[in-house]
Amino acid sequence: MASTYSKQDIDDMSERMRVNFVNSLSGFKSANLVGTRNAHGVNNLAMISSVFHLGAHPPLMGMVMRPHSVPRDTLQNIKDFGCYTINHVNESFVAKAHQCAARYAPDVSEFEQVGLNAQNAQCIDAPYVTESSIKIALQLEQMIKVSANNTEIVIGRIVEVNLPDNIVLNDGYIDIEKSKSVAVSGLDSYHSTKRIDRFSYAKPEQKPTSIW
Amino acid sequence: MASTYSKQDIDDMSERMRVNFVNSLSGFKSANLVGTRNAHGVNNLAMISSVFHLGAHPPLMGMVMRPHSVPRDTLQNIKDFGCYTINHVNESFVAKAHQCAARYAPDVSEFEQVGLNAQNAQCIDAPYVTESSIKIALQLEQMIKVSANNTEIVIGRIVEVNLPDNIVLNDGYIDIEKSKSVAVSGLDSYHSTKRIDRFSYAKPEQKPTSIW
Repeated sequence: MASTYSKQDIDDMSERMRVNFVNSLSGFKSANLVGTRNAHGVNNLAMISSVFHLGAHPPLMGMVMRPHSVPRDTLQNIKDFGCYTINHVNESFVAKAHQCAARYAPDVSEFEQVGLNAQNAQCIDAPYVTESSIKIALQLEQMIKVSANNTEIVIGRIVEVNLPDNIVLNDGYIDIEKSKSVAVSGLDSYHSTKRIDRFSYAKPEQKPTSIW
Repeated sequence: MASTYSKQDIDDMSERMRVNFVNSLSGFKSANLVGTRNAHGVNNLAMISSVFHLGAHPPLMGMVMRPHSVPRDTLQNIKDFGCYTINHVNESFVAKAHQCAARYAPDVSEFEQVGLNAQNAQCIDAPYVTESSIKIALQLEQMIKVSANNTEIVIGRIVEVNLPDNIVLNDGYIDIEKSKSVAVSGLDSYHSTKRIDRFSYAKPEQKPTSIW
């Protein structure tokens, strides 16, 4: 049996119900830890499930920051220093990554609290997560305020990437399943993946073929 | 062995290599089919891997549209009519969904070409994908031009949702793994998922516990 939910049905949900429900609707999400440093040199780490691909040339990534939710320190540090890192969450430290969402005080380092290690990015003043297989350094490119709900979309330009050699294929595709990157659904569910297939570039009058 | 790629290394890649590489970096992505109708009543369908959660109250979703890539018809239809549907891609029709990325002429319906069925959303003039387990109808809320690369971020407000009753949990969380929604990596790799765990709300001084 299927049900239809109207605009009113969603408005009438309790806040907790609505947050879980709407957060699940977009589909599977990326799981990343965003690393920043504050003016006192404290390394901060935020769990973010809203990182998205924005373009390859120039290489740009976007992410959504909610002004009234947890990663306020992160947003402030990005504004202050103009740089940050994005680190894939791997299966081996999912619970530690989730714990980074707790509301620690601004001068408390989530790295120490949850037990992850920081290492400096080469070209910017922000910490990578040592345990993460795929580490990306970004410079702030643009911030966009979304008038509909006062969130901010943070756009960064990729200036450095560190990852294992054996997951980069000849055509540039990175096998993020092999490196055990995870996916998120809703607010709090973490998933490993199993490849169904990789398909050839889609053309009219030609069925997609497997390229895996 | 791990390698570090500089900004210059990425700039120096061939276009195909760079597109695959950078598209893989953000992590796992949602897989959705966006349904629209054009002025001649033709139902269009576009494969989009950039849909993201933007907020629950009001319920908003964003997606990135590249002006020079495939879904130009979709973008035009959204601008003309102010509405569209988002339909989860399920494991059972992954190849058909991928084929929707082919450059069909504007008056050709991808539904017919790839063999998926259209059904009307109740409250807007746009088609749902019958085969999709999770169907969402949206009204256009805002379009944001990203100056860094001329992409457009399309923001929509959820006005209707249709999904199976047995995947909605008591707390509002939707089990999109049970309904066989898939994840995407890079441009062309599709993945099923296996839940690692669902964790309790993160609090300082308290380890996350399983709520699954």
